Amino acid sequence: MSQCIYEFGPKKTDGDSSQKDLLGGKGANLAEMAKLGLPVPPGFTISTECCNDYFELGGNLPDILDAQIFAAMANVESQMGMGFGDFENPLLVSCRSGARSSMPGMMETILNVGLCSTTIPGLIKKTGNEWFVYDAYRRLIMMYSDVVMEKAEELKPKDGMGIRLSLEMMMNNLKNDKGYANDTDISIEDMKNLCERFKKKISEDLGLDFPDDPREQLMGSIGAVFKSWNGRRAVAYRRIEHIPNSWGTAVNVQSMVFGNMGDTSATGVAFTRDPATGQNSFYGEWLVNAQGEDVVAGIRTPNPLNLDTKNSQNGHLSSLEEMMPELYTQLFDIRNLLEDHYQDMQDIEFTIQEGRLYMLQCRIGKRTATAALNMAMDMLDEGRIDEKTMLCRLEPKILDDLLHPIVDPEAEKHAAVVAEGLPAGPGGAYGQIVFTSEDAVRWAKADKKVILVREETNPEDIEGMRAAIAVLTARGGMTSHAALVARGWGKCCIVGAGVLKINLETKELRVGTRVFKEGDLFTLNGTKGTVYEGQLKMKDATENPKFKRFMEIADSHRTLRVRANADTPEDAKIAREFGAEGVGLFRTEHMFYGTDSDRPLFLLRKMILSKTVAERKEALAELFPFVKEEIGKTLAIMDGMPVTMRLLDPPLHEFVPQLVENQQEIADALRIDLEEVIKRSEQLKESNPMMGHRGVRLGITYPEIIEMQVLSIFEAAAELIQAGKTPQPEIMVPVTCNEKELDFARKIVDRCYEQTLEKYGLESIGYMYGTMIEIPRAALIAEKMAEHAQFFSFGTNDLTQMTFGFSRDDVGALMNDYLDNGILVADPFETLDQEAVGSLITTAVDGGRRARPDIKLGICGEHGGDPASVEFCHRAGLTYVSCSPYRVPIARLAAAQAAIKFN
Amino acid sequence: MSQCIYEFGPKKTDGDSSQKDLLGGKGANLAEMAKLGLPVPPGFTISTECCNDYFELGGNLPDILDAQIFAAMANVESQMGMGFGDFENPLLVSCRSGARSSMPGMMETILNVGLCSTTIPGLIKKTGNEWFVYDAYRRLIMMYSDVVMEKAEELKPKDGMGIRLSLEMMMNNLKNDKGYANDTDISIEDMKNLCERFKKKISEDLGLDFPDDPREQLMGSIGAVFKSWNGRRAVAYRRIEHIPNSWGTAVNVQSMVFGNMGDTSATGVAFTRDPATGQNSFYGEWLVNAQGEDVVAGIRTPNPLNLDTKNSQNGHLSSLEEMMPELYTQLFDIRNLLEDHYQDMQDIEFTIQEGRLYMLQCRIGKRTATAALNMAMDMLDEGRIDEKTMLCRLEPKILDDLLHPIVDPEAEKHAAVVAEGLPAGPGGAYGQIVFTSEDAVRWAKADKKVILVREETNPEDIEGMRAAIAVLTARGGMTSHAALVARGWGKCCIVGAGVLKINLETKELRVGTRVFKEGDLFTLNGTKGTVYEGQLKMKDATENPKFKRFMEIADSHRTLRVRANADTPEDAKIAREFGAEGVGLFRTEHMFYGTDSDRPLFLLRKMILSKTVAERKEALAELFPFVKEEIGKTLAIMDGMPVTMRLLDPPLHEFVPQLVENQQEIADALRIDLEEVIKRSEQLKESNPMMGHRGVRLGITYPEIIEMQVLSIFEAAAELIQAGKTPQPEIMVPVTCNEKELDFARKIVDRCYEQTLEKYGLESIGYMYGTMIEIPRAALIAEKMAEHAQFFSFGTNDLTQMTFGFSRDDVGALMNDYLDNGILVADPFETLDQEAVGSLITTAVDGGRRARPDIKLGICGEHGGDPASVEFCHRAGLTYVSCSPYRVPIARLAAAQAAIKFN
Repeated sequence: MSQCIYEFGPKKTDGDSSQKDLLGGKGANLAEMAKLGLPVPPGFTISTECCNDYFELGGNLPDILDAQIFAAMANVESQMGMGFGDFENPLLVSCRSGARSSMPGMMETILNVGLCSTTIPGLIKKTGNEWFVYDAYRRLIMMYSDVVMEKAEELKPKDGMGIRLSLEMMMNNLKNDKGYANDTDISIEDMKNLCERFKKKISEDLGLDFPDDPREQLMGSIGAVFKSWNGRRAVAYRRIEHIPNSWGTAVNVQSMVFGNMGDTSATGVAFTRDPATGQNSFYGEWLVNAQGEDVVAGIRTPNPLNLDTKNSQNGHLSSLEEMMPELYTQLFDIRNLLEDHYQDMQDIEFTIQEGRLYMLQCRIGKRTATAALNMAMDMLDEGRIDEKTMLCRLEPKILDDLLHPIVDPEAEKHAAVVAEGLPAGPGGAYGQIVFTSEDAVRWAKADKKVILVREETNPEDIEGMRAAIAVLTARGGMTSHAALVARGWGKCCIVGAGVLKINLETKELRVGTRVFKEGDLFTLNGTKGTVYEGQLKMKDATENPKFKRFMEIADSHRTLRVRANADTPEDAKIAREFGAEGVGLFRTEHMFYGTDSDRPLFLLRKMILSKTVAERKEALAELFPFVKEEIGKTLAIMDGMPVTMRLLDPPLHEFVPQLVENQQEIADALRIDLEEVIKRSEQLKESNPMMGHRGVRLGITYPEIIEMQVLSIFEAAAELIQAGKTPQPEIMVPVTCNEKELDFARKIVDRCYEQTLEKYGLESIGYMYGTMIEIPRAALIAEKMAEHAQFFSFGTNDLTQMTFGFSRDDVGALMNDYLDNGILVADPFETLDQEAVGSLITTAVDGGRRARPDIKLGICGEHGGDPASVEFCHRAGLTYVSCSPYRVPIARLAAAQAAIKFN
Repeated sequence: MSQCIYEFGPKKTDGDSSQKDLLGGKGANLAEMAKLGLPVPPGFTISTECCNDYFELGGNLPDILDAQIFAAMANVESQMGMGFGDFENPLLVSCRSGARSSMPGMMETILNVGLCSTTIPGLIKKTGNEWFVYDAYRRLIMMYSDVVMEKAEELKPKDGMGIRLSLEMMMNNLKNDKGYANDTDISIEDMKNLCERFKKKISEDLGLDFPDDPREQLMGSIGAVFKSWNGRRAVAYRRIEHIPNSWGTAVNVQSMVFGNMGDTSATGVAFTRDPATGQNSFYGEWLVNAQGEDVVAGIRTPNPLNLDTKNSQNGHLSSLEEMMPELYTQLFDIRNLLEDHYQDMQDIEFTIQEGRLYMLQCRIGKRTATAALNMAMDMLDEGRIDEKTMLCRLEPKILDDLLHPIVDPEAEKHAAVVAEGLPAGPGGAYGQIVFTSEDAVRWAKADKKVILVREETNPEDIEGMRAAIAVLTARGGMTSHAALVARGWGKCCIVGAGVLKINLETKELRVGTRVFKEGDLFTLNGTKGTVYEGQLKMKDATENPKFKRFMEIADSHRTLRVRANADTPEDAKIAREFGAEGVGLFRTEHMFYGTDSDRPLFLLRKMILSKTVAERKEALAELFPFVKEEIGKTLAIMDGMPVTMRLLDPPLHEFVPQLVENQQEIADALRIDLEEVIKRSEQLKESNPMMGHRGVRLGITYPEIIEMQVLSIFEAAAELIQAGKTPQPEIMVPVTCNEKELDFARKIVDRCYEQTLEKYGLESIGYMYGTMIEIPRAALIAEKMAEHAQFFSFGTNDLTQMTFGFSRDDVGALMNDYLDNGILVADPFETLDQEAVGSLITTAVDGGRRARPDIKLGICGEHGGDPASVEFCHRAGLTYVSCSPYRVPIARLAAAQAAIKFN
């Protein structure tokens, strides 16, 4: 086995911030800070490789680890001048998880490891603070029994109380019995007694004694942290964030420093710039006489770090700047040092122990989309970073938030305010309120927009927060769990709205005398922190000039073109506004997805249920003007830009009328009886419609359908040309698997082209002819396809479907089993499977270019707006990606980042 | 343009028999015979390339062809000492089609081209036979008006009569009016009049005059023959025979010789060996004073060629040997020369004009399977051919016929004979009688076994003959259309059963006083020529010792192993008898395809409709003994040979009960109510089940299903080992697309393996673990799959489905459109698509071998028994193919031929 242990501290540091894969983010940055000479309590990191070994050994630490740990511990002891397990001057340590990518609150932490009957007296003697020592002991027992003893042994009864809750109840009962308002009011004797009763309860409930040996505590803690990598919450989080199971977590063992040793001790969390707005000011929260978790847990409203951090919620509380100005200055200098060093906004944790500052963590800080944009542009202008770095500072997906709707300010003026809280997540949202994570998931599945309202959130709420359109909590600050998670996801969120009183039993929410029930509508302004009653009008985010400049810089770096999928003139307009350089997919069938009373749908049904060519041609002739008009409008809006028109794609039975009155209507129109309509409808049913009679296959059977559509395109284009415009239609044949299909349709296209030229007296109409590549066979024989097609557009939805043999319509439940079991890392319908689907695309790109070096290559379908897939398309050498209009900016940025990364 | 015209004849011959692609079979063999010095009337062949030019020019002959044709014609004229269009000594020619591969009767022929008002007097003067000349003219008018004038102009009214029928009716009316019994009774004057009335009728009906110019007749005929390549019947025939449209036909223009110039003239068809039995004797039929088509048309029962050819039908007629002994000797010498030259049985056509013998055609003769086998083995023993040539003499598919059932001779002894006819197609068959091709197709679609009974068949009957299990005609000889086609397909057939009187209107068949109706059951002994009433017992073809030796020789040449797909112990037994070297596919679900009352199906349903793991495990425990027993029996029968057991494959909803009583039964068993059963059944429905929850995906969701199956396999094997046997189970996981699925299932397999070893106290159980490759993704990532799989079995049915995006269940109608439009040459579910599906297989073979050089590679599915696909598998380097038991000999021979061709 290679090196397992990487030390850090004032005297010796093995790692640095480049080693996140091996040391996790926390460990790597602790090492980096130590190297920078910052006051980091010494400790060591056990590598992520060790975590994988742990699981391979069936949940056991490698044998040789013991010796390495205690060698490293000896170095820590010597730096601290203390001894782990020493009776006189005992060293306590923390054990914290730390993965490559931050997973806030998803894994375990154990503090105060090393406290036991033999070390307690020494620590009391040394600190002169018996209460503090027993409080620390109490905390260790609670954490250790929960995390190491119970979870390790899987003893937690499924429906009963866990050990943690049992111990918390014992402590609450004590406080109630004795009339203690706060933990700090508990007497030393009571605290000592509590510790003893805790240990007794643990032995009874778990059948195991709480270990009184520091080494046993340490090894137990390390194993438990590793084990928590595969805890239920952590696995669920990784699924959402597409983090591979194989990464593993590191364990950081670090000398304890205490923010809770009295009024000269404190603990805090800060950001080197404002994570909500991006403003260049030091931003943070802190608590006096507290342990780190107290700030994040959201139980107490924390104090502002400085004047810049004061707001309506915490303005009355003292800042660190005011209370401990020298320490604040030291911290402020560290803030500047870190910004200069990392050239990016850092999220830091610090503890002040009896007037001395320690740095416990530093990492790239999460930020809202607006903050990310503003900070990146500011740092560019400050000369800190260059354009390429600046462009890579924003995850493309985050742009979504910038384009998210906000509450219309006009509507807000007259709206009824329910509560005020902290603006923890961007934008605005309205939805129906629910009070549990489960309800949020259930309602969302029923296609309802819900706002999850919680006292405070914890990691158990992750899935509900994901499902909700917005999150609202009664407690917690800007660095609380809810705020961190919502910000990470760019989700609208308000925290610390203290007036809210939630009753989980009645599913009611009280605000003063008013009562709201589950399902009532609220509107949240997550940028301001205001909760409104009812549903307010929404507005598109006003254009941020920085955003425009940012996108211009992005465009100047990318080589991949970006188009939009737009089925209507309206969509096309939005797409153009968002910077689309054409329409990559105009689905000619879209206009039939209307209501039963729509004329085009009626005519389509008539066509579908025709049996003779004559019946069908009559219906097609009636459809023709509708199709032509819609196509003409879109071509006009996209004037001068290419518009790819896909010929009819879905199986016909999708459009068959289900209601008797609609069936009768068709019967009348076709002059046949109702039974015949029902019979013909039945005949259209297929066992596997996705692989049935659709796309070009319909055109082979009914060439008159292709003819009507192609003629609509040419005539619409001809009329625009006569009006002095420059339409650029591209005719795209879907569901092809054979070059002869393209040849077949081409003959119809040629005929329609000649006919249109003659009708309008034109010399030519500029257009292209091409095909979707969405059937594996088409990709495999792309060289032949390209002899007939001037362009390919990869239909990655269907291509994924056929390549995996996963029916999109059925795969839902199965996909969860696959993700849960780690068989798939991501849903291939969301993120392109580069391995197999990607290899088919590469094969097709190569084949296409061999036959036709100037072939135009694009992608349409969900993946066109997925940044990882855009990167793949760039590398595969495609000409363009096409995605939904709202995702165009994302694709533009992703394309720029891909160009920066790979050019 | 390159050379279009290839001359042949006593003086000059351009081509030879190796040029079938260019000259067609007929043209190439005419050239070869001319080169051999045989008496071939001179002529020339217009190449198949010219046919493609003709279609590319939109149905027009290339301009430069005229000059080439008349240059060649000049050579013919000089050899014949006659002039085409010459008033004194006019040359007449025939225009016949001739494709690369024989398509009997599918394309057009025009005889007597060159007869017109100016040449008739000269020919009368020369022949002194006015009647003969006008009869020839009458025939020319009838053929030309039908083939060239009407079809060329597409003037035939859709539902009305064609010109040919109109003219035939005029001639019949004349015969009736004047009391002429035969054509030959018509007086010269009447014949002359008839010709004039024909020409008038043509002008009236078609609006065109019958051409009186020999050159115009010739060019029209050539174009019409080319055009007939794309006639409806020819296209249908090519589809069935998988002949590409691009091959085209050649046109043979040849000097006419006449078998109908009186009693010293004759025409005949012969085979150099007996095409029914393979016996080494000269076999043929002939007619005195007749044109060639008369022998084949089956209107007259032809005379036997010689003593060897006499049978119960023609024994009373004189043979050529008796009537014209000198000419017979000349023909017999030619027969020997051709056999020595081609070293294979030839099918020849000859004409005797006024005592002089001419050879008009020679080609490899069609033969029954028995004849093919016997001839090949005889020629091997005669030292004419070597083993490799001998093996390649039999199309692998023909072996089917050797293995076809025959009528049980015991049953025949007591059966009621309906009629006797000629034994035109091998084996025996029973079925319901129908009287039209359309009915045969329709009944067959409804899964009925039908016997097509016709007066005589013609090319219009092709599809019905295909659909029927056997064919029975009232007229025609062994070389009639029905006999030729049936023999080509190896279909049971009896021709010339003259006692049958068919009434198409009442759909009745009279035999003497007895009346049979459509749908009545007949049994045919096609090897003997006897028609029985009712359904007789069938028997497997008795073992032919030549067949055994033939297969042994085949096995000694092949390298590819051959296994069988066998789902039951019975199938496994048959497979072993047919020489299978293992079972390549044992579908564990087969035992559930029973009737509603079967216990295993009931238990499977109970399992499927379980909701909780407990319910499911209970049902699985009950299923276990059934599955284990069936597996054990099959392993026992295949002792010492590998048996690939595929884990549960189909979507569960396939097994859901449809009848209320069965649903209630399940409800009772599960102790839930009926509504719940119906609800659970509904939940199992999928939009595209073929890409849904099936195969390994079921096992990921319900690992207990895999466990039950794997445990059944191991326990069955363990018990056989204890009984001293050597089972070789191979566990195969279906529908995989990801290597982690294999890893998931592997863990269950490992656990079951250990558990079984312990239970039975065994050291080891020999087995392999592998996967189907049937999803495109699995093929694309085969290298990874092979890390987990010891073998691959290509499931080409599903792989074809996903690669094409064709749902097997829905593709029927679509496939016809694709074949009709020439978009596909063959149904890819019948013949492996080597281009794309094949390339996925090759990719997977390469990937698999990279990861695991000794990986075992096989194919299961329909294609395993398709000779072309077997050849592909040999070239792709697979270890084995697996096919249905009855196709094992076919696969063995195909594998031998592939080895001969490619090693």
